[in-house]
Amino acid sequence: MNFADRMQEAVERCGNAALVGLDPHADSLPDEFAAARAPAASRAERAKACADFLCQVIELAAGKVPAVKPQSAFFELYGADGAQAWERVVAAARAAGLLVIGDVKRGDIDTTAKAYARAFLDPSAAGAAVCDAITVNPYLGADAMQPFVEACRAYDAGLFVLVRTSNKHSGLFQDHGTPKLYEHIARAVDSWGSELVGRSGLSSIGAVVGATHPAELLALRKLLPRTPFLIPGYGAQGAGASELAGGFLPGGRGALVNSSRGILFAYKLPRHAGLHWKDATRAAIAEMVTELRALAH
Amino acid sequence: MNFADRMQEAVERCGNAALVGLDPHADSLPDEFAAARAPAASRAERAKACADFLCQVIELAAGKVPAVKPQSAFFELYGADGAQAWERVVAAARAAGLLVIGDVKRGDIDTTAKAYARAFLDPSAAGAAVCDAITVNPYLGADAMQPFVEACRAYDAGLFVLVRTSNKHSGLFQDHGTPKLYEHIARAVDSWGSELVGRSGLSSIGAVVGATHPAELLALRKLLPRTPFLIPGYGAQGAGASELAGGFLPGGRGALVNSSRGILFAYKLPRHAGLHWKDATRAAIAEMVTELRALAH
Repeated sequence: MNFADRMQEAVERCGNAALVGLDPHADSLPDEFAAARAPAASRAERAKACADFLCQVIELAAGKVPAVKPQSAFFELYGADGAQAWERVVAAARAAGLLVIGDVKRGDIDTTAKAYARAFLDPSAAGAAVCDAITVNPYLGADAMQPFVEACRAYDAGLFVLVRTSNKHSGLFQDHGTPKLYEHIARAVDSWGSELVGRSGLSSIGAVVGATHPAELLALRKLLPRTPFLIPGYGAQGAGASELAGGFLPGGRGALVNSSRGILFAYKLPRHAGLHWKDATRAAIAEMVTELRALAH
Repeated sequence: MNFADRMQEAVERCGNAALVGLDPHADSLPDEFAAARAPAASRAERAKACADFLCQVIELAAGKVPAVKPQSAFFELYGADGAQAWERVVAAARAAGLLVIGDVKRGDIDTTAKAYARAFLDPSAAGAAVCDAITVNPYLGADAMQPFVEACRAYDAGLFVLVRTSNKHSGLFQDHGTPKLYEHIARAVDSWGSELVGRSGLSSIGAVVGATHPAELLALRKLLPRTPFLIPGYGAQGAGASELAGGFLPGGRGALVNSSRGILFAYKLPRHAGLHWKDATRAAIAEMVTELRALAH
């Protein structure tokens, strides 16, 4: 089934559009995973502690949210051991019935782009660690995106193209020109996705649009009526549910809202003081699900 | 020593600015490495065949050219086995006295950018597989580049920021607006590098500028008098030495010229027909060195 349809089906099944970001910051892991930051631990031990933690988070999230988003950078930090940990985490999430959006922000030309696309989206290359979708960076242009789009067609996978990112100064280049660069890219995203529209009416070629820029989020939603949005910036990065509403299509369709630290490290928040990390994460997932439920109906 | 100074020293020592791209396309490897494409081979065997080939290429290139550029995508295709192969190849290149420019085109925000920077540039994270420099994608803005720039300061490493890429339609977004986006980014690159200028007068924050766009290459060279250029597009991608000249500073300084397929798979070129692949690659390196020698003096 087309990625957009699988995404929409998962959102409807769970009744919310929450996307749990799996960013295993070693310094923030609960004490039982302190091997991740122990100077005496080997690289393999540190990578394993991160994966152990994330596999337990996956158990807590399974059945409650539609998708998770592992962040490649925190795995690459451990080299080949991190790559093993990535494979274990992605496979565990898929086995738990969660969609996996690999946050890899890759982008390159020609056969190199094809190799990246296959590495993450082709089951014959990635095996049990295949992602349902990945994030990609469009700076190199349409010809550089084409191999990724073709991989989506070949493997029923999806993309989320960086359009307007959630960082404070994302406008430096993304707002450049008239029309603004991100609007120009948004129109290209719509065009790249035109042949991958599923039964849901959504395309498998999505866009990353930060909730930290609500006016742009609203404008892009109008410009892109069939593009799924991956919306970062909720929770720890500062945006609340009201800023998110503009990113959804009528009926609460067509978006996933990411929270990473707010879920993974909920045990560090004052309002969860005294809770075991699992209870804090469970509570944070429940809070997010409740907040987003209103938007996903 | 500052990356720019190490780069300039290596170019002067070798008498040329050749950068050998290490892109192990499985389909193009010589027959003795056919395990890389054998359907019956395990992923580990395929990754090992690629690394075996590249380690032999590194032996042929050592002492003759200043630097190599492994392309991450072709390693990521083999997951954790590919990550091991990457580490082996990078460590072998460094042990052979070659500068290593990791072609990873990463880019992300905040602590994620910091994790990517550490993964490739921090010797305490990457060990013997640490890179001297990496390629990065600037689309997310200056705040997203800052952790990479800080890593260069901390680890005496370098960056090559994508400015004008070598693909045919790179202008779609890179030429957007007035001034063009790539010019806007070029000025930012100059500013990011202002505090990392070495004794050579060059900064450790470089730019990727394709030889396939000679007019832009010349204009960018004038705009960025202290920025090292990584120039792809020579050889297999179509540009010759005359197109490259504009990318150098007076005295043949401040640039590295990449060739990947033209060196690695030289044995497939008609003019090398009948040669063992090693002799063909040796000849292709000698040809490139001769062509570039005129530019590096």
